[in-house]
Amino acid sequence: MPKQVDHDSRRRLIADAAIRVIDEMGLDAARLRDVARVGDVTTGAVTHYFASKDEVLEAALAEVVRRILEGEEAVAASGSDGDLIDAICGFLPLTDEARRDWRVWFAFWGRAVVNERLRALHRYYYAEVTRRLTTALAARKQAGALPPDADPAMLADAVVAIIDGLGVRATLEPDEWPPDRQTATARLMLAPLL
Amino acid sequence: MPKQVDHDSRRRLIADAAIRVIDEMGLDAARLRDVARVGDVTTGAVTHYFASKDEVLEAALAEVVRRILEGEEAVAASGSDGDLIDAICGFLPLTDEARRDWRVWFAFWGRAVVNERLRALHRYYYAEVTRRLTTALAARKQAGALPPDADPAMLADAVVAIIDGLGVRATLEPDEWPPDRQTATARLMLAPLL
Repeated sequence: MPKQVDHDSRRRLIADAAIRVIDEMGLDAARLRDVARVGDVTTGAVTHYFASKDEVLEAALAEVVRRILEGEEAVAASGSDGDLIDAICGFLPLTDEARRDWRVWFAFWGRAVVNERLRALHRYYYAEVTRRLTTALAARKQAGALPPDADPAMLADAVVAIIDGLGVRATLEPDEWPPDRQTATARLMLAPLL
Repeated sequence: MPKQVDHDSRRRLIADAAIRVIDEMGLDAARLRDVARVGDVTTGAVTHYFASKDEVLEAALAEVVRRILEGEEAVAASGSDGDLIDAICGFLPLTDEARRDWRVWFAFWGRAVVNERLRALHRYYYAEVTRRLTTALAARKQAGALPPDADPAMLADAVVAIIDGLGVRATLEPDEWPPDRQTATARLMLAPLL
């Protein structure tokens, strides 16, 4: 179905442009015409796929989440504990692209505290990310790679908190938190748990 | 110097009102007259202490940080490892007032990603919070309460990340993250480190 593929890839291109615009200008200043400019499409093309600015912003967050869920496949596929910790560190803002995604999260957090709809969307995404992580950790426990008293759901919560906590620092202080410092601090916390 | 005390307590009252307004309306919608209304003072009183809306907002963040630094005194004064972990859990959004403070952080994070001045202020506060925590942990190490190979600065980074990471979840999902769940997850991560 090439038409569907086209539609999806166009939506994703526009969502990616929205991520760049939110990153550059902030969520409040971002306008549909800025998204069109950065995505190199017409403003009409943006409004064809998204009825409002809020919908574009939600699509940006959805695209960031899609990338996170891709990363979770690496977590699920990891063999040794070292591989698992490496895969988890892959969620940190280690690259320019990842830092951009993180700044989109920040913009949404700032707005979600006063917007119930965004908060609900956010809750949904966190539930999905945590559910998949819990499944991956439960499979490791089953395979004997975690202690018998390990609680996969609680460990998943801990992993998400460690990544979010370091992501906050590293996103706001990119110069002070190069990749080495992020991964070393993550390992210090993750190694005793996994 | 009662005059100075008066000045400081008035500034703090207005900062506290700003925290409530940011919490209720969001950072962007907050106006000086809303701060005056909530603080039960005249708009003139607000502008007497603060030259601009940004200055009021910065004072709100400064007040939140002052409360955090107060909490750090409990960390420094804690005796056993259990006391230390309790004191650290005191930074989590366990109460309505603490959740309000956390929402102010969120509002600032959202704005700091596109505002270098706020980012610098934020860096300064985190450096101060981490420095004090490092000093407290170094004193514990000196007293033999931490392993000889423990790195107090890195442990302080880890503690801050754990609190921030859980604070993010609990602030955006207050119903799903009652105090018990927050402190149990924090303990799971902190116990192997401290």
